[in-house]
Amino acid sequence: MDQEEMINKRQILKKRPTGIPDENTWELVESKVRDLMEGEMLLHQEFISLDPAMRGWINQTRSYIAPVEVGQVMRAGSVGKIIKTKGKTIFKEGDYVSGWGGVQNYCITKGENFYLVDPQKANLPAYLGVLGMPGMTAYFGITEVGKIKNGDTVLVSGAAGAVGSIVGQIAKIKGCRVIGIAGGKSKCNYLTKTLGFDGSIDYKSENVTKAIKNYCPKGIDVFFDNVGGDILDSALIFLRKNARVVICGAISQYNSSEKISGPKNYLSLLVNRAKMQGMVVFDFAPMYGKAMSDIAKWIEQGKLNHREDIFDGIENFRETFLRLFSGDKKGKLILKI
Amino acid sequence: MDQEEMINKRQILKKRPTGIPDENTWELVESKVRDLMEGEMLLHQEFISLDPAMRGWINQTRSYIAPVEVGQVMRAGSVGKIIKTKGKTIFKEGDYVSGWGGVQNYCITKGENFYLVDPQKANLPAYLGVLGMPGMTAYFGITEVGKIKNGDTVLVSGAAGAVGSIVGQIAKIKGCRVIGIAGGKSKCNYLTKTLGFDGSIDYKSENVTKAIKNYCPKGIDVFFDNVGGDILDSALIFLRKNARVVICGAISQYNSSEKISGPKNYLSLLVNRAKMQGMVVFDFAPMYGKAMSDIAKWIEQGKLNHREDIFDGIENFRETFLRLFSGDKKGKLILKI
Repeated sequence: MDQEEMINKRQILKKRPTGIPDENTWELVESKVRDLMEGEMLLHQEFISLDPAMRGWINQTRSYIAPVEVGQVMRAGSVGKIIKTKGKTIFKEGDYVSGWGGVQNYCITKGENFYLVDPQKANLPAYLGVLGMPGMTAYFGITEVGKIKNGDTVLVSGAAGAVGSIVGQIAKIKGCRVIGIAGGKSKCNYLTKTLGFDGSIDYKSENVTKAIKNYCPKGIDVFFDNVGGDILDSALIFLRKNARVVICGAISQYNSSEKISGPKNYLSLLVNRAKMQGMVVFDFAPMYGKAMSDIAKWIEQGKLNHREDIFDGIENFRETFLRLFSGDKKGKLILKI
Repeated sequence: MDQEEMINKRQILKKRPTGIPDENTWELVESKVRDLMEGEMLLHQEFISLDPAMRGWINQTRSYIAPVEVGQVMRAGSVGKIIKTKGKTIFKEGDYVSGWGGVQNYCITKGENFYLVDPQKANLPAYLGVLGMPGMTAYFGITEVGKIKNGDTVLVSGAAGAVGSIVGQIAKIKGCRVIGIAGGKSKCNYLTKTLGFDGSIDYKSENVTKAIKNYCPKGIDVFFDNVGGDILDSALIFLRKNARVVICGAISQYNSSEKISGPKNYLSLLVNRAKMQGMVVFDFAPMYGKAMSDIAKWIEQGKLNHREDIFDGIENFRETFLRLFSGDKKGKLILKI
C-alpha cells in the first residue's frame, strides 16, 4: 500500500469527563499519514492495551505522568509492526515492537519508549498483558513492594484482572496462601480452578468482610489492592502485625465524580505497625528484563496462566474501555485495530 | 505512716464511653492498701502521664494492647518512689521508678515493666514526657519510621504536643526544614520562637491546605501525623516522590462516635510512590537506652526544649485528661497525685 493512500484513524481526547467517560470524551478523527522524516519509522499498530490507569491520564490533575491534553491522541500501550523506515533508524522494517503508540492505527516514531518483541516466543497480545505493563506491575508490586515471603497470607482485589491474576499466581509460586476477590461466580471459579488460588470471594454476592474473616482466620500479611473503596476498608480490618498494603490502583474510585472515599480503617496501620505503599511500575523499568525472563519461564513451566480478552475495532474504543469498570471482561482487555 | 492506715484512691473503668468520656466512664474508688507478699514492693505514685492513646485503651476493640476491662484500674504511665518492700525485691526502698502504675495513689508491684529513674538527672515529670513514652515515640517515629535525612521537608501535626514538639526538634537537629501545625497563636509562637521550627500553621485560624502549599512549595518528604482527619487529607496532597507518612495517632478521631473519617487523598500514595506506616513505640523497647542517652545529651546541649503542664489531684483525672482533646494544655500533660 502506498503511504499516500494510508488513512490513520485516531481517538482524540475531546473533553475531559466528569465521572464515566461518555460519547463526548473522545472523537474518532481520520487523517492521511504524513511522509516520514529522517530517522523515523512508520508503525502499523495491531493491538492496543486498555488499562484502568488510562482513566487517570485524562484528568487534569497532578500525577505520575502528564495528563493527556485535549486535542491529543489518547495515550495507550500498543504492539505492532514497523512497515516503513527512513534513513538510519533504531528498528528495521518487519520488526515487531511494543510501546506507547496511542489509540490509532498508525504511529510515526523514532523509537523512543518502544522495544522489540518476538512474535515467535509469545503471541502479540501477551506483550500487552502478562509480558507487558500489567505483568511488570504484578511482578514488582508483589515482590518489591509487597515483599512476600514463603508462608504469607496474601489477599488480592481485582484478582481476575490483568494485574491481579498474575499477582496471585506469583504469590503462589513463592509459597504464599492466596485468596482473591473478584466479581461473579465465573471469575471466582477461574481463580480457584484454573489459577490455583486457595480461595476466592465474590464481592457481588458475598459479604466481603465476613468472607475475609473466614478465609484468613489468622489475618493478612499482604493485601494487594486494585480496587479501593469498601473492599480496602474490609481488608484493613484483618491486617496482621507488620502487614504490607500495596496500593496499585483504585478502580472503584476512578469514575467517581464525588470525592474519593478514603480508607476508614486506616488506623489498623497504627495498631498493626503496618505499611500502605503506592507504586508506579515505571520506577522498576531498569529491572524489567529480569521480570520478563522469570515470567516467560513460569509460563513455559505451566506455572503461570494468562488470558487476554480481545475486542475488535478502533471505533469501539470507548465501549470496550468501559468494560474495565463494569467488570464485563475476562483477563487482560485488548483492542484489536 | 503505717500501711494499715494507707488508703488507695483509684480511678476504675466503670463504663466504656461512646464518644467523649463522661462522668460515668470512670469511678473514683477508695480502698485500704493490702499487705505486701514476698517479692512485692509498694510504690507511692507521684505523677501520672495523660496520653491520647489512653482513649483507645478503653474501647473494646482489637488493638496493640489489651483493652482496660471494666472494673480495672485505668492504665497509665506513672513515676514514683518505692516506700516499702518485702523479701527479695528488684528495687529497694527509696528508689524512684517509672512504669505502668495506673491511675491510683499506690501500686503494689514485683517490678515488671518498671525501670529505675534518677531524680538528680531530670525532674520526675520529665520521665513521663521527653524521657518517657512520648520522647521514645518521637525519637523512633521520626528516625526509624520517618527515616528523615538532611534537607528533608518535615511537616508535623499536633506539633506543640508532647510527641510533636520533640519530633520537630529532632528533625531540626538532623538538618531538616520543619513546619508544625498546632491550634492557636500562642502554640504557634512557641513552635517558631522557642523550639526553632521554620514555620507554623494555626489550624484554628488558617486554611491548612493553603498554608502547607505556602510553607512547603516543593512538597513534603515526611509527614508525622498525630491528628488524622482533615489535616491528614491536606498533607497528603503535598507528598513528594517517595514521601513517608508516619501514623502515630489520630487525636481528631479518637472520641468520634461515628465512623472514622478515612484519608480521602490516599491515592497520593500511589502517584508519589509514598508510604504510610503505623507505629507503636513498644516495638522499639530494646533501643530505648540509645534514645534516652541522645535525648538527655540534646537537652544538656540546649538543643531540645521540653515543658510539662502539670495539674493536680486524682479526683480531677477525667477533666484533666479531656484537655488532651480540647487542646487546652501546654506541652506534656501530667497529673500530680
